[in-house]
Formats: sequence, C-alpha cells, structure tokens
Amino acid sequence: MKSITVRTEVDVRFNEADPLGIVWHGHYIRYFEDGREAFGKKYGCSYLDFYKNGLVVPIVKVDCDYKKSLRYGDSLIVEATYTPSAAAKIVFHYHIYHAATNELVAKGSTTQVFLDKDNNMLQLATPPFFVEWQKRVMSKE
Amino acid sequence: MKSITVRTEVDVRFNEADPLGIVWHGHYIRYFEDGREAFGKKYGCSYLDFYKNGLVVPIVKVDCDYKKSLRYGDSLIVEATYTPSAAAKIVFHYHIYHAATNELVAKGSTTQVFLDKDNNMLQLATPPFFVEWQKRVMSKE
Amino acid sequence: MKSITVRTEVDVRFNEADPLGIVWHGHYIRYFEDGREAFGKKYGCSYLDFYKNGLVVPIVKVDCDYKKSLRYGDSLIVEATYTPSAAAKIVFHYHIYHAATNELVAKGSTTQVFLDKDNNMLQLATPPFFVEWQKRVMSKE
Amino acid sequence: MKSITVRTEVDVRFNEADPLGIVWHGHYIRYFEDGREAFGKKYGCSYLDFYKNGLVVPIVKVDCDYKKSLRYGDSLIVEATYTPSAAAKIVFHYHIYHAATNELVAKGSTTQVFLDKDNNMLQLATPPFFVEWQKRVMSKE
Repeated sequence: MKSITVRTEVDVRFNEADPLGIVWHGHYIRYFEDGREAFGKKYGCSYLDFYKNGLVVPIVKVDCDYKKSLRYGDSLIVEATYTPSAAAKIVFHYHIYHAATNELVAKGSTTQVFLDKDNNMLQLATPPFFVEWQKRVMSKE
Repeated sequence: MKSITVRTEVDVRFNEADPLGIVWHGHYIRYFEDGREAFGKKYGCSYLDFYKNGLVVPIVKVDCDYKKSLRYGDSLIVEATYTPSAAAKIVFHYHIYHAATNELVAKGSTTQVFLDKDNNMLQLATPPFFVEWQKRVMSKE
Repeated sequence: MKSITVRTEVDVRFNEADPLGIVWHGHYIRYFEDGREAFGKKYGCSYLDFYKNGLVVPIVKVDCDYKKSLRYGDSLIVEATYTPSAAAKIVFHYHIYHAATNELVAKGSTTQVFLDKDNNMLQLATPPFFVEWQKRVMSKE
Repeated sequence: MKSITVRTEVDVRFNEADPLGIVWHGHYIRYFEDGREAFGKKYGCSYLDFYKNGLVVPIVKVDCDYKKSLRYGDSLIVEATYTPSAAAKIVFHYHIYHAATNELVAKGSTTQVFLDKDNNMLQLATPPFFVEWQKRVMSKE
C-alpha cells in the first residue's frame, strides 16, 4: 500500500512568535494537527468521523526535528503523509516548509491508537471502520 | 453583601510573550481564569463544583483594560473579586499587578450565567446550589 | 469618513474547544486578531507595516460579548470593521458569525494606541504614517 | 558527571483540556517547558541567563510518549533531568506524573543547541558560560 499526502498552508499568527521573534517550538505540534485535520477533512478520517464510528484516536507519540525557524509574517506548508501499516495504529509523517522559499523547516511524526469511545478500551486490531477506510481510500489513489 | 477577593501569583511563561517581548494581550483572559480558579478552589465554586450540581457557567462577557505591560521573567498577582448581585449572574472583577513593583498592569471583569448542564437551558433565577453557596460563604466573611 | 469591513473565515481547531465541547472564551480574542490581521494584510496596516514605520500599536482595551457557542468542526466568519476617529487611536469592531448558519456568535471591540517603537513613548497625535494611510484608504472606498 | 533533577507541580488549566475532557497532547510541550524553567530558575540557566551571556538556546528536537491522560482538575508533577554531555548540546529528559496517584503519565526529551544571540551562528563547542555553569553546578551536587 502506498502513502497519501495532503498539503495545507498556514499563516504564522502574531501570538505564535516568541520574544526572539520566532515561532515557539510547541506550536509546531499544532501545525502538525492542522495538517492532519486537512487530511482528515479531505479523506473522511477527522476526529469527528472516528467519533461517529465509536472511536477516539488519541496521540500516543509525537516527535519533531527543527531545522529552520519561522517568523511572524511567514506562511508555512504542512505536508501530512499517511502510511498504512499492519499494526492497529495510525502513523502520520509531517514535513513543514517555508511557503515562500520551499525550505524544509521541520519534520516529525505522530502515532495514534484506537480506543472504544464508550469504555476507553484499547483496540488491539484495526477497527472495521478504519479497515474499510483504508480499502476505500487506498484503492482510489 | 460584601465582596470577597482571592489573590494568586502567576509566572509569565516564555511562550506567552510576543515578538515585542511583552505578554500578548489575549493571555490576560487566561490570567483572569487563573484568578477565578484560585477563587473557586478556595471557596468551593470551581467549574467542577458547578458541574456536580448540574450546572455549567459559561462566560457571556469579558473586558480588559491594559495599563502596563508584562515581560517574560515577570510574575504577576491576579486579584479576583466576587461581588454578589441579585441577578442570576456571576460577576468577577480582576486586578492584575506586577508582583515585584505592585504596579497595576490591567483590570477587567467577566460575567457568567447559569445553564442546566443537561438541556443547556438558561436559568433565569439563581439556582439553589449557588444561593446556598452565597449564604454559606458570605456569612463566614 | 466611513468605516471599512473585512470578512475572513476561520476553522475552529480541535484544541480550541474545551471539555464542554465548546470553544473556550479566551480564543475569541485570537479570532478578533485573525480578523484584524486579514484587514491589515488587505489594507497595508499589519503589525509589520506599523513597525516599518517606527510604530508599535499595542491593544489597550478589549471587550467581547458572547451570544452563542462554537464547536469543533464549525467554521466562523470574523468581520473586522475599522471606524476612523479623530483621536490618536485605532478602534476595530468585530462580529463573529457561525459560517454555516450566519448566526451572530459574538461581538466586541479592541482599541490600540501608537507608541514610538524605539522609546515606547505614547503618540498623542495620530502619526503621519497613519494619517496618510487614512487618506489613501478612505478615499478609495 | 551525574544528572540533576528538578520536580515542579503544575495544575491543569480548564482551557488545556479538549472536547474529550483530557489535556490536548500539544500542551505537554508546555509542561516540559515549565519543568525546564523551574530547573533554570533553581540552577541559574534560564533563557534570560543564557541571553545575558550572549546566547540563545533554541530547541532542535522534542519527543513525547503519552502513557495516561490528564484531566481538568488534575495536578501533575514534571521532573526535568539534565544529563551533561560532551557535545555542544543541552539535553533534558522529562517525566510527567499524576500528582495524586504518582502514575507515570508521559515521558520525553528536548535537545537545545547554542547560538550566538547577535549573529545566530551555531556554536560548535560548548560556550564558556555553560562550561563554567557545568563545573559550578555539578561540583555542588
């Protein structure tokens, strides 16, 4: 199975830059989420889609490597890439680029697991909703 | 009925200061909440106390006047003052002081209303839980 | 002189909604800023434009009235309206609408003053850059 | 050289919990910073201490593993551990515990590098200020 990537543009907000004039490192986690949300909206796997199917998909791992800095006034491109896996997990990789120069600013990843939304039980096998999603989305790409 | 005031100290976080080196104005709304929470913890009227009594108490109005600025490295004192009123509302006034100099940095207020947590219906009369709270707390002060 | 309005659309981010499922009231101050920034980008009066002209324009007053709530999954329209005034101040009024239903969700205002960026001195008269801006922008509208 | 650990307690803020009632994963990066700041305050190596010595110390890498969730009303303990290294880097490891139960909630790390604050040049050798700091602090422990 191949991976799928969605690109989305985000403007740096004034309040996201710190006293050194650069975006505070913690906000990149939000940019990752902006990318993941844009992906979810396009491919029908947002938090709300999971929720309607009885699932919550909390983040269990995040990492980010910072290469360059972003400043107030900059725009950035988040590339969120879903790579299917056999494990009962959702893994995204992210690349953040400076929109004007295309320079790589940061990269990272997140891992999510599946919980039953009613009893918070971890799902050890990929739930039917997401197996279906994988078939439907992957066959189209 | 008199008013009651709770003072609480908060450190400015690095990520709360903006590229000009001063705390972004939107974060003061959070400092107000820090003050209101310290009040609620001390006097038994936090969001959780209301919730246990079937109520949610959303903010319907906020205002803030900024007099001085705060910088990373500063600590501030939030003074949250509850003034009882006959209307079915909770009104707090806030004064934020620079902890080191005691200078007034900002002042403002919030207004909250009472909603039934199950049907989101606005309560036109002050709910029994809060009438009791007023009697209990005000008689002690 | 007439007022000018810029409308901009913003998606509610997952992390902006609180445990009650609704957007935390403090985030509206950020939506106001999103509206003011969209205005500044369109009409050449963003923070960076002021800065290049030797000025910073801190917020000295903000207020917000909340009418309805916003939820994760919602989009909102911020309408930022600049109304010229004789005083050395910048006043914006904001209306936030639910994008899907057009219902008014909140309204408020901000007031900014002009400081010399080098010595932080308050400018008691409207600085030449902004007088020019007013002439240029207002004559076009 | 041994490692040094500072423990600090943080209350979960209402606005840090998401619509599922649990703290949004991005806020843990802020808790890490709260721990690092408490460390810096105690041992004289906060952002301001570096700055006074001509240095900025941006984060170049962060990772976090989430084990349990935190809810509004909870308090947490952040343990920030500095482990000296020969490389021109500052590495902290973090453990976040639920304050009431002592359960491990999350763990992670950050890596910072040294830049000259004036020309943003990466320092390939540990700068004298920090070499001195290591000697002074480590000999005491």
